[in-house]
Amino acid sequence: MARLSSAQDYKSLLDKYDTWLFDCDGVLWQGDRLVDGVPEALNLLRTHKKRILFVTNNATKSRKSYKKKFDQLGLEAQVDEVFGSAYASAVYLSTVMKMPKHKKVYVVGMKGLEEELEEEGIQHLGGTDPADNTLAEFHLKDFQPDPDVGAVLCGLDTSVNYTKLSKAFTYLRRPGVVFLATNIDSTYPSADGLLPGAGAISAPLACALGREPLSIGKPAETMMDCIKAKHQFDPTRAIMVGDRLNTDIEFGNRGGLSTLLVLTGITHESEVVGPHASTTVPTYFTNSIGDLRAAIS
Amino acid sequence: MARLSSAQDYKSLLDKYDTWLFDCDGVLWQGDRLVDGVPEALNLLRTHKKRILFVTNNATKSRKSYKKKFDQLGLEAQVDEVFGSAYASAVYLSTVMKMPKHKKVYVVGMKGLEEELEEEGIQHLGGTDPADNTLAEFHLKDFQPDPDVGAVLCGLDTSVNYTKLSKAFTYLRRPGVVFLATNIDSTYPSADGLLPGAGAISAPLACALGREPLSIGKPAETMMDCIKAKHQFDPTRAIMVGDRLNTDIEFGNRGGLSTLLVLTGITHESEVVGPHASTTVPTYFTNSIGDLRAAIS
Repeated sequence: MARLSSAQDYKSLLDKYDTWLFDCDGVLWQGDRLVDGVPEALNLLRTHKKRILFVTNNATKSRKSYKKKFDQLGLEAQVDEVFGSAYASAVYLSTVMKMPKHKKVYVVGMKGLEEELEEEGIQHLGGTDPADNTLAEFHLKDFQPDPDVGAVLCGLDTSVNYTKLSKAFTYLRRPGVVFLATNIDSTYPSADGLLPGAGAISAPLACALGREPLSIGKPAETMMDCIKAKHQFDPTRAIMVGDRLNTDIEFGNRGGLSTLLVLTGITHESEVVGPHASTTVPTYFTNSIGDLRAAIS
Repeated sequence: MARLSSAQDYKSLLDKYDTWLFDCDGVLWQGDRLVDGVPEALNLLRTHKKRILFVTNNATKSRKSYKKKFDQLGLEAQVDEVFGSAYASAVYLSTVMKMPKHKKVYVVGMKGLEEELEEEGIQHLGGTDPADNTLAEFHLKDFQPDPDVGAVLCGLDTSVNYTKLSKAFTYLRRPGVVFLATNIDSTYPSADGLLPGAGAISAPLACALGREPLSIGKPAETMMDCIKAKHQFDPTRAIMVGDRLNTDIEFGNRGGLSTLLVLTGITHESEVVGPHASTTVPTYFTNSIGDLRAAIS
């Protein structure tokens, strides 16, 4: 593992890699605030004809609404450069599970997740349905489960409640109903600090059922398969940039890519150097992706 | 482990034990339905001057409201015969943690839990407060944490939502704030079937924090200490009757009591006999506590 510091370090990084995969929250921005120097760093890569891909576990937004976030922040991005765990989950259901058209997914999640399911032609229940977004008491006797539900898909859902959890639990107790999570990040970096993440939304179900969901997002291979289906690249000339060791860095390492950890998000320096360092080790680390600007000088 | 079947089995059980501890949900009743023969079985014990105690992990009700449930079902019970995990949690905060009077507890739980805290003179936030029972978006920047919060206490909360979870998470990230759960039963036996239990309510926080709560209810010793502080009894002449191996039976076994598993609740016979039996073994098992009526003949 190398700590990047000199202009030469960043120049050789630029030479070595043609494909740059970026996590977003905690790397490009923190909530609604751009990380310092990000526009310049991304422009530098585009000027050098690098392929840029954005790979996010955030499943609250579809790729289209994610693109809007880039627009609002003044960052150039194309929809087909964006890979979210909501999209990857929809692709998993349609192409890996090959879920029949008449089958449905019960969603514990938000609008972006529903949009990606719809793009893949997958029928869904729950999610933003007003009937399931309630704090009213839930009684099993008033619930008629839909026999066509073949999977429960959990993502970050800030409207999570006992009715959704109870319905999801009831479906998951039926034989053959698959338990999926867009991702299992334990926390979510909001603009003002950490909040419970998608892993905290599927945790009640995992507890009640005594089994864990299959997680689609980073570090799972499903996400990498999704990207490779659309973009061919040489892993030895590709680098994954992220702020989380157990998702981003693990994801890049597993895929045979080089990895660059930045310290603008979740991970503290003490987790990569020193006696308490993690066993997941990035190829490089630096304070911020903005540091790449040093290569310009 | 002995399977009880003959009238003689039940008669000798009656002779052997002076103190009878009962779990309630799944033993005395299922939701709002009495288990067959329960009134006769309890009357039999009272006629024989047995001490009866009700020991429940259900923390949605205070002892007083639990007493009302007995009344409604036509069962004799005194408030001081009832030990709930809500009560035990309040006693733990006041007598074991010795929480100073100016300190407060943030509650993820229901009215019964708040009532027990109030009985012990403990200040609380969250819980049934309408401000925290909302599906509106939560923003950390609008939240002013109360510096006097010294603990977060989670119980079954059918109004659980992202605002409560986010506030609880924020408190628990502060140094010295204690993470307690009334109990960690993964499921809750409602009248019409299983629903997610108290363990599923603290699970999102455990996931987001990366640490587990201290659980007060069965099988923890705290619950036994609570009972012993009020009632003296000889453990060798006491029996714990329950439907869950990992809470009720474990609780009785740890406390040096005999244990009787009934099959009217969570546990299937295959979990006590045969190749897949649990390592937690009751002293006795029988189909239903109603079978005790056989001792009358």
